[in-house]
Amino acid sequence: MKRIAVLTSGGDAPGMNAAVRAVVRKAIYEGMEVYGIRHGYAGMVNDEIFPMDSASVGNILSRGGTFLCSARYPEFATLEGQMKGIEQLKKHGIEGVVVIGGDGSYHGAMRLTEHGFPAVGIPGTIDNDIVGTDYTIGFDTAVSTAIDAIDKIRDTAFSHGRTFVIELMGRNAGDIALWAGMAIGADQIIIPEEEFTFEEVVEKVNYTYDVLKKGHHIIILAEGVMSAEKFVEGMKAAGNKTEVRAVNPSHILRGGNPTVHDRLLAARLGARAVELLKEGRGGLAVGIRNEQVVESPILGTAEEGALFTLAEDGSIIVNNPHKADLKLAELNRQLQHRL
Amino acid sequence: MKRIAVLTSGGDAPGMNAAVRAVVRKAIYEGMEVYGIRHGYAGMVNDEIFPMDSASVGNILSRGGTFLCSARYPEFATLEGQMKGIEQLKKHGIEGVVVIGGDGSYHGAMRLTEHGFPAVGIPGTIDNDIVGTDYTIGFDTAVSTAIDAIDKIRDTAFSHGRTFVIELMGRNAGDIALWAGMAIGADQIIIPEEEFTFEEVVEKVNYTYDVLKKGHHIIILAEGVMSAEKFVEGMKAAGNKTEVRAVNPSHILRGGNPTVHDRLLAARLGARAVELLKEGRGGLAVGIRNEQVVESPILGTAEEGALFTLAEDGSIIVNNPHKADLKLAELNRQLQHRL
Amino acid sequence: MKRIAVLTSGGDAPGMNAAVRAVVRKAIYEGMEVYGIRHGYAGMVNDEIFPMDSASVGNILSRGGTFLCSARYPEFATLEGQMKGIEQLKKHGIEGVVVIGGDGSYHGAMRLTEHGFPAVGIPGTIDNDIVGTDYTIGFDTAVSTAIDAIDKIRDTAFSHGRTFVIELMGRNAGDIALWAGMAIGADQIIIPEEEFTFEEVVEKVNYTYDVLKKGHHIIILAEGVMSAEKFVEGMKAAGNKTEVRAVNPSHILRGGNPTVHDRLLAARLGARAVELLKEGRGGLAVGIRNEQVVESPILGTAEEGALFTLAEDGSIIVNNPHKADLKLAELNRQLQHRL
Amino acid sequence: MKRIAVLTSGGDAPGMNAAVRAVVRKAIYEGMEVYGIRHGYAGMVNDEIFPMDSASVGNILSRGGTFLCSARYPEFATLEGQMKGIEQLKKHGIEGVVVIGGDGSYHGAMRLTEHGFPAVGIPGTIDNDIVGTDYTIGFDTAVSTAIDAIDKIRDTAFSHGRTFVIELMGRNAGDIALWAGMAIGADQIIIPEEEFTFEEVVEKVNYTYDVLKKGHHIIILAEGVMSAEKFVEGMKAAGNKTEVRAVNPSHILRGGNPTVHDRLLAARLGARAVELLKEGRGGLAVGIRNEQVVESPILGTAEEGALFTLAEDGSIIVNNPHKADLKLAELNRQLQHRL
Repeated sequence: MKRIAVLTSGGDAPGMNAAVRAVVRKAIYEGMEVYGIRHGYAGMVNDEIFPMDSASVGNILSRGGTFLCSARYPEFATLEGQMKGIEQLKKHGIEGVVVIGGDGSYHGAMRLTEHGFPAVGIPGTIDNDIVGTDYTIGFDTAVSTAIDAIDKIRDTAFSHGRTFVIELMGRNAGDIALWAGMAIGADQIIIPEEEFTFEEVVEKVNYTYDVLKKGHHIIILAEGVMSAEKFVEGMKAAGNKTEVRAVNPSHILRGGNPTVHDRLLAARLGARAVELLKEGRGGLAVGIRNEQVVESPILGTAEEGALFTLAEDGSIIVNNPHKADLKLAELNRQLQHRL
Repeated sequence: MKRIAVLTSGGDAPGMNAAVRAVVRKAIYEGMEVYGIRHGYAGMVNDEIFPMDSASVGNILSRGGTFLCSARYPEFATLEGQMKGIEQLKKHGIEGVVVIGGDGSYHGAMRLTEHGFPAVGIPGTIDNDIVGTDYTIGFDTAVSTAIDAIDKIRDTAFSHGRTFVIELMGRNAGDIALWAGMAIGADQIIIPEEEFTFEEVVEKVNYTYDVLKKGHHIIILAEGVMSAEKFVEGMKAAGNKTEVRAVNPSHILRGGNPTVHDRLLAARLGARAVELLKEGRGGLAVGIRNEQVVESPILGTAEEGALFTLAEDGSIIVNNPHKADLKLAELNRQLQHRL
Repeated sequence: MKRIAVLTSGGDAPGMNAAVRAVVRKAIYEGMEVYGIRHGYAGMVNDEIFPMDSASVGNILSRGGTFLCSARYPEFATLEGQMKGIEQLKKHGIEGVVVIGGDGSYHGAMRLTEHGFPAVGIPGTIDNDIVGTDYTIGFDTAVSTAIDAIDKIRDTAFSHGRTFVIELMGRNAGDIALWAGMAIGADQIIIPEEEFTFEEVVEKVNYTYDVLKKGHHIIILAEGVMSAEKFVEGMKAAGNKTEVRAVNPSHILRGGNPTVHDRLLAARLGARAVELLKEGRGGLAVGIRNEQVVESPILGTAEEGALFTLAEDGSIIVNNPHKADLKLAELNRQLQHRL
Repeated sequence: MKRIAVLTSGGDAPGMNAAVRAVVRKAIYEGMEVYGIRHGYAGMVNDEIFPMDSASVGNILSRGGTFLCSARYPEFATLEGQMKGIEQLKKHGIEGVVVIGGDGSYHGAMRLTEHGFPAVGIPGTIDNDIVGTDYTIGFDTAVSTAIDAIDKIRDTAFSHGRTFVIELMGRNAGDIALWAGMAIGADQIIIPEEEFTFEEVVEKVNYTYDVLKKGHHIIILAEGVMSAEKFVEGMKAAGNKTEVRAVNPSHILRGGNPTVHDRLLAARLGARAVELLKEGRGGLAVGIRNEQVVESPILGTAEEGALFTLAEDGSIIVNNPHKADLKLAELNRQLQHRL
């Protein structure tokens, strides 16, 4: 393969720029040419495609967001959209593409490959909810941003003797809530992967104030469970008497400069994606598992290790769907303050 | 005066701890004894009063929140509440009190002084909306926290080509919005001190995308104008066509470690408050004006330089009410990107 | 004046970029054209001069360093250098220049003006040692960076029970040491503006360990006094028995994103400098005094409020040389932990 | 086992407090009693041993340093020191001990276990140079602190067009230099695990300025290779002509609040150490390998998976000594800017 392209898709995540840099620089190192695509799949179809060189990814390694910009583009789910995209890529002599993003991005990559155009996916999203990898690019930064925000909220919780329900992103996966909650020693962490009852929640709140005589209480709630406002209502219905506030700092979690962890992950996955394309391999997603860079077929059978399987009725089955590590949740409970 | 007490009241603000430290250490330096009062005026009435020494304010200088805790306590507006508070203070042999907080806190200090119990106010609130001082303790930190949050939001705004309306605290004063907006070079800053029309707002948004070809637009909105959600509705009604999001990071603005500016301001004002009490002077609020530490009568006539005047009908007149500096707002407009 | 230029000179300081942005945008707002000069006076002489527009200062407001770059250039002290510089500027039709930097930069501006070419100085240096202003652009950020570094060093000081002598920049002025020391509650602050003896220093160290039973001791030392290594030697000679370490985090103080304070100061001073040039006025330096933007003649008599006076023997007299505020130093001593 | 103790030893590292919290809380959860030991092995021998409860580790999770304090104590290498330590522990009815620290700490733990007193080691050091674990507690934070410092230094490097040699901690292992260098995209990374020649170093420097026309150059140097000053001398001897500065921000690397990664690692390792002691197992060190918490015998044969083996001559052989991952070093070279 002599010429490849790279795009970012879906919600922006810190480290996407570092991944783009790795793709561009590694491709040049391997003797290939690289093109950038602006605004994700939309830009592919609309020909926002431009040549990049080594200097065009200077000074972006440490920046949040994605300088290639991203966009939602449901039209790419249609065959017409996909063929139009391939047509544009071929016009520029491009033979393969690296797609950095979440689930939706992988589906696009899968379709391109099926049409004979090799595409490789890199997991870039803060939610850590992508199959085929222990960690997504952006997750570590988002948790880091979350604990900074929680620390500030806790100053007020302590000063005013309040209970706070802090909602953190994570529609399908409770990872951000779980990790951030553990990192700040939250009194309670509520994630979609675990059952809970409001009665138990309120009981723990009361234990804090009545028995431990601690003046505040922090509950970290994953977005996927319900909204913080609804959660507070549930607490009230279950008899909560403490002054409780619902807050949601999620809008800042996507931004910010990537952590060391996310920068190195981006470098390793970006470089591997290029190696795969160089070998002419597509329809794969790279990831990190047990500290090793790995790749998995995006579509296929579970036995092949594919991330997704096409069911007979046309629906998509997620093989080994990601779940937050419940041993961590149990550990957080064990490390709670108690008398 | 041989023995004084200190309390924090109203919403917590970064630097309150530094101010408490300054009061305690300065009083000890001046040969006085110091007591702490927990939970503001409520704790005064409920006798949450305890002796402090030099070591009891070790390691708090750099911490956000207030380790004395704060609380709302409307009952202190009654004569009965005030007399009960004075009774408690006298029980401990306390002869004067330093009150760190906002407007409501000053009113309490004024009443105490009227009843013959000298009290001095220190402006501690993030809003910068207190008369008698150029800056309140906590304002600089809150603006600093705000720009960190805005920088993160801007990563997403840029990556997705969106318009963001970012609501920042400030019910009466637009200072946080104005300073934060200037510091990040906001496209528009909307504060209660200035008129605006949604038509102009939308026109400027369109200019950014259509003429400047800049892919995103940031509007900083002071809470005192209206909520970000309502503002977005107003924009839509005025013809906005861009993808616009309303966000409100206000819940993190109160917390965090104080900036250098807030720490030094707290030290200077705390020390001055003690000097005033040592001279037996109460009914005053300290502040900083044109870089000098000053004090003003809390209640009196405008000619005397008092912060508040009691009108004949019993209502309270604010003399020289604080307003955000409109020259800064004009400067921000002059420094906008234009062709 | 229709066309002006801007340069940065001397050591880089956070906020220089914000000042350049203000100069460029304000000039465009005032209907003028603006040129940038790279590498300070060296670039002026070597014709590193290029036209700037409103977009060329986008995205630099929050960046540390100076994107115009800076350079030492002693050759500009010669008449030949100055005339060559003016020649280059005139070649581009430039009629006035804004110089952002320290003392040396002001001297250059003064010479240009003397040769009939109006130049205005803006104080940009972290040391806060420039006459004619209460604060220089970069000072607040440098102190902020210093306290972050000191907080980290203090973790080790506490954990190992050590005395640390932390040297901070400031050849002529002790401001960084004084402000940073106050902001972290240093046990001792040693600045060039105050006398000290090693005997007293060691006595205070011993008091901390022997009387206060506090396990560590932090001394903040201004570079202008002596190096930290030399200071530690002096302590040993005076009988220090504690484990003491000399550290110098100065190399990181120049960098980093500017604080809110430095960004607003840069905006205000940059805009004022342009106004002065627009009025055809040169040979002035802008500054902030008691919260007001002011300007002073760079050269003249003390009665005229000039910053420098030329003595009969040709030497330069600094009028009202800057000194760190000793009231702060005294306040820090009063707020020390004591029994 | 009914009663255990915990100490921190060697250089302080961010996350040590989080590890102590995990040990204390987990032990209480498991129905055991816990004692703290101040000042490491020195405090063990000198009976600085005190009972801890759940509340005594409140509010320390996020703090840098070690609130148990640490100390060097070479006397513990002697049999007499060890027996004295055990005597003190037994006096308090303590049956096992958790030691958080580096290599030296492990040796102490090994000796205690040999004398029949079970001890378990937890790797706590910023250097990441301990066998038996992929990551040590404190490493991620130290790298994170390093990149913040380097970003600031780079502002100056860029502004003045300079070459900087930045020395980072790591006597035996180049991990901090390697990770920090990768995370900021350093031009060169020099670590003890790889050969280098000054001729090549200077050649790469020249390539940056002469061919790439990039105005600055950053070299990250691990302490274990040589000092930055010596390195600069070597560069000069090899013909370097660029303005080059040697800096060493190492004194701030030990401090600061731990990152999310270090906090969770501390929680997991601390809890596992307690489980081992509860089972009566000592002479082990816990660690993380391929994302799994593991334990290894401190002393034994390589076949047993022991970290150290006692040679016949009494010397200690390190089995599988830690080395920085050279694939990362190679990847950094591949991602360099080139034409």
